[in-house]
Amino acid sequence: MLAGIPLVECVPNFSEGRDWPKIDAIAAEIAQGGAAVLRVEADADHNRSVITFAGDPRAVSESAFRAVAKAAEVIDLRLHRGMHPRAGAADVIPFVPISGISLAECAEIAHQVGARIWTSLQIPVYFYEAAALRPEAERLENVRRGQFEGLQMIPDLGGPALHPSAGAAIVGARRLLVAFNINLNTADPGVARRIAARVRAAGGGLPHVKALGIFLPSRNLAQVSMNLTDTDITSPQQAFDAVEAEARNEGVSIRNTELIGLIPESAVTPLGAAFRLCEDFGDHRILERRLKTVPRLP
Amino acid sequence: MLAGIPLVECVPNFSEGRDWPKIDAIAAEIAQGGAAVLRVEADADHNRSVITFAGDPRAVSESAFRAVAKAAEVIDLRLHRGMHPRAGAADVIPFVPISGISLAECAEIAHQVGARIWTSLQIPVYFYEAAALRPEAERLENVRRGQFEGLQMIPDLGGPALHPSAGAAIVGARRLLVAFNINLNTADPGVARRIAARVRAAGGGLPHVKALGIFLPSRNLAQVSMNLTDTDITSPQQAFDAVEAEARNEGVSIRNTELIGLIPESAVTPLGAAFRLCEDFGDHRILERRLKTVPRLP
Repeated sequence: MLAGIPLVECVPNFSEGRDWPKIDAIAAEIAQGGAAVLRVEADADHNRSVITFAGDPRAVSESAFRAVAKAAEVIDLRLHRGMHPRAGAADVIPFVPISGISLAECAEIAHQVGARIWTSLQIPVYFYEAAALRPEAERLENVRRGQFEGLQMIPDLGGPALHPSAGAAIVGARRLLVAFNINLNTADPGVARRIAARVRAAGGGLPHVKALGIFLPSRNLAQVSMNLTDTDITSPQQAFDAVEAEARNEGVSIRNTELIGLIPESAVTPLGAAFRLCEDFGDHRILERRLKTVPRLP
Repeated sequence: MLAGIPLVECVPNFSEGRDWPKIDAIAAEIAQGGAAVLRVEADADHNRSVITFAGDPRAVSESAFRAVAKAAEVIDLRLHRGMHPRAGAADVIPFVPISGISLAECAEIAHQVGARIWTSLQIPVYFYEAAALRPEAERLENVRRGQFEGLQMIPDLGGPALHPSAGAAIVGARRLLVAFNINLNTADPGVARRIAARVRAAGGGLPHVKALGIFLPSRNLAQVSMNLTDTDITSPQQAFDAVEAEARNEGVSIRNTELIGLIPESAVTPLGAAFRLCEDFGDHRILERRLKTVPRLP
């Protein structure tokens, strides 16, 4: 990543998490649009997939539009059942600044792509977070209240009637977040819900943590599903430690963890004071990284 | 680093830490020998320099021999004064397995280079750690007891008389270690010595930690100087935390920290349970690293 060259990430969520040919078709369309597909993942319980892609603003805009069009073609939301709330075939389409671009510029990209979605596909559009046109649309939970079958807000573009099979698209701009799930060695969703209520910021827990307790039928286990919206303040490890402590109080152990999409390096490996205070510290002091800069070494 | 292609690191210490043209001449000779010079550093108080280089066994052997020859040419140990014990112009020459090579094979390299040092340069040689030929030579401290002016052990090759100006070379093989120093906001070396005595393994402190309290005249401060010989067991951050706690008890704060040479990535950023337990975790999930694998992205 060179400073100055704008790089945008887009992490759309699609309401299909079981039929891989359909998911692959959407990913292929994204690649056709010019962006680089970084990861494709699907969850059968949520019946939802997430495709992470990145590129310059033009490529990412084109790929995002094509993804929404392909999702509308292959997904019929009237037939969709899953554990996760949703409003559209292509449900949420956030643009995330990575380098050389501001959050406000990503909001502009959201507005342009949203306009094209409405005019070309007749899918109504909501703008959320940094792209919201009204304060009550800033929070995704508000926009999606009532879901596809009974959304309560009027769309920003089109509507009030939704697209019959594709619903609405919620397009936005936001900062990087880390979607981090912790699976518990219990099938009791009540345990996960109590833990989530205690660790989330809204319950007086950790700052910049959103958390839900949910049940995953396919694996018969309970999960604490979190969004960490500022990992400089609360890292995944800190969130893990808090969930583990609460789980211990419930007499339950941690099974494993999951990330959705990609995670910034700083959230994996926050540097402790031992290195923050270190003279002349950097990649040139880390053996593996220094070796990579020497072309003739194996 | 490709698995299977042998890569050896060598981290020789030279008894010259003030005269940069001499240090640069040694580094140039190392590069001529075919290894890649990764870092050159010198300490005026210790009057000692450390050059980190790496390459295949043949190149590293040639570079190590040339370094010892050049050091013998430019350094006269009879004129050397410094805070650090030393036995030779090229004082300690450890070979460290990085990938595709065993510690025993590095000991063989040490024996071959040592033989060449004695036969070609008439500098007596001790073999230490994994290359030691007798148990009492395993520990570097034992070998170097009495220093240049009065070494107590007979060399393994040559001797008992040392080379008049270059002394002896202590050649060995060992695993990677992290040389990590913590500078205190005090000029009192007694504080550093008490802290070192409490945190080191030999004093019942942290496992795999060697520690000394020393005074740095040029900076007028006391330092806890450590070798961490298994950072999977005691990481630099854990050593830092222990020193910081002891310093707080002494009413002293930490000024900053220093590394000597390079540090393996795992010692900088040990993965917490949040990631050790994570499904499908790896470089492909870390945004910056995944982006680097996409050639056409900025």
